Amino acid sequence: MTPSSLETLIEALRCLPGVGPKSAQRMAYYLLQRDRQGAQHLAESLETALQAIRHCQRCNTFTEAEVCERCASPKRDASLLCVVETPVDMNMMEQSHAYNGLYYVLMGRISPLDGIGPRELKLDRLLARACDGVVREVILATNYTNEGEATAHYLSELLKSRGIGVSRIARGVPVGGELEYVDSGTLAQAVRERRPLAD
Amino acid sequence: MTPSSLETLIEALRCLPGVGPKSAQRMAYYLLQRDRQGAQHLAESLETALQAIRHCQRCNTFTEAEVCERCASPKRDASLLCVVETPVDMNMMEQSHAYNGLYYVLMGRISPLDGIGPRELKLDRLLARACDGVVREVILATNYTNEGEATAHYLSELLKSRGIGVSRIARGVPVGGELEYVDSGTLAQAVRERRPLAD
Ligand SMILES: [Zn+2]
Ligand SMILES: [Zn+2]
Repeated sequence: MTPSSLETLIEALRCLPGVGPKSAQRMAYYLLQRDRQGAQHLAESLETALQAIRHCQRCNTFTEAEVCERCASPKRDASLLCVVETPVDMNMMEQSHAYNGLYYVLMGRISPLDGIGPRELKLDRLLARACDGVVREVILATNYTNEGEATAHYLSELLKSRGIGVSRIARGVPVGGELEYVDSGTLAQAVRERRPLAD
Repeated sequence: MTPSSLETLIEALRCLPGVGPKSAQRMAYYLLQRDRQGAQHLAESLETALQAIRHCQRCNTFTEAEVCERCASPKRDASLLCVVETPVDMNMMEQSHAYNGLYYVLMGRISPLDGIGPRELKLDRLLARACDGVVREVILATNYTNEGEATAHYLSELLKSRGIGVSRIARGVPVGGELEYVDSGTLAQAVRERRPLAD
């Protein structure tokens, strides 16, 4: 006896990641009962974003322009290209204030279980970007998860075969981290990847 | 450097209950990257539901008609009126196959902390419905939570003052429940509210 447009809405809400049948129902009831204005605004924002948002021709992040502001900026060091998994990761890098080069956003990672391989990630586009003659070093900043590591390994082989310099961000004990609370895998890597100190 | 239509979408997604800034961002990226069709469908479903869905003039549940199918059905016992908090609760009652009367859906509960009192719940509409001259008994089927109990208590006083018969669904050990695994509060109530058995 649920009205059909309500059933359709509940089903449509399930396109959101992490939203199952129960919470889709709860969301639909909430919107219709308590926040019709918010629901209207959401519908319009979806339409607008779908129309306006595309991928930057150079770095692949979300943008409303052909080329995003960062890629177009003359203040960035175009000889450095940092590869990250997502726009959020790119923001994290920016917030570290440790990097002034350009980016390439994979919009994912190699994940065989999800059916995402090199082709789905369109890695040929990254390759073309990295081989523009200006890039001298590609810094792989994918996550230190199994999938991020596999992606970095794959990219490293690919790029090195083209004679492009490749590096990987360091892993180890977090700044402010106490050994007592660092997991043993991280600590083991920190020992193996120890750096010699200058005198 | 987030494009403004993307920022607007992330903000708009926060109207959904239980969605904070992090998951709104994750949802927006997911929709734009992996499910543009789903996002389009969601936008349209929101628009359609907002336009089509209203409240039944008799029972207050969501419907696309003036009066919902159930209220319009001649097969239901119009002398019984069951008060529930939500459309989901009404569905649960229906699935129990123990009730063939009509309903009134509060679309909430008295909840002073959320600023929801008798006025916000528009209890005068329920009162008018219960005083139609046909209803002989109002069955209070609000939840056995603090708020549901307070709502039932309030409604019971209100209805009794108008001379309307009022009952409350029973509480006790669940069917199939083992005493060993029932919480002690429920067990205490089951003892206090024990029923005499026929010979
Ligand atoms: Zn760009
Ligand atoms: Zn109705």
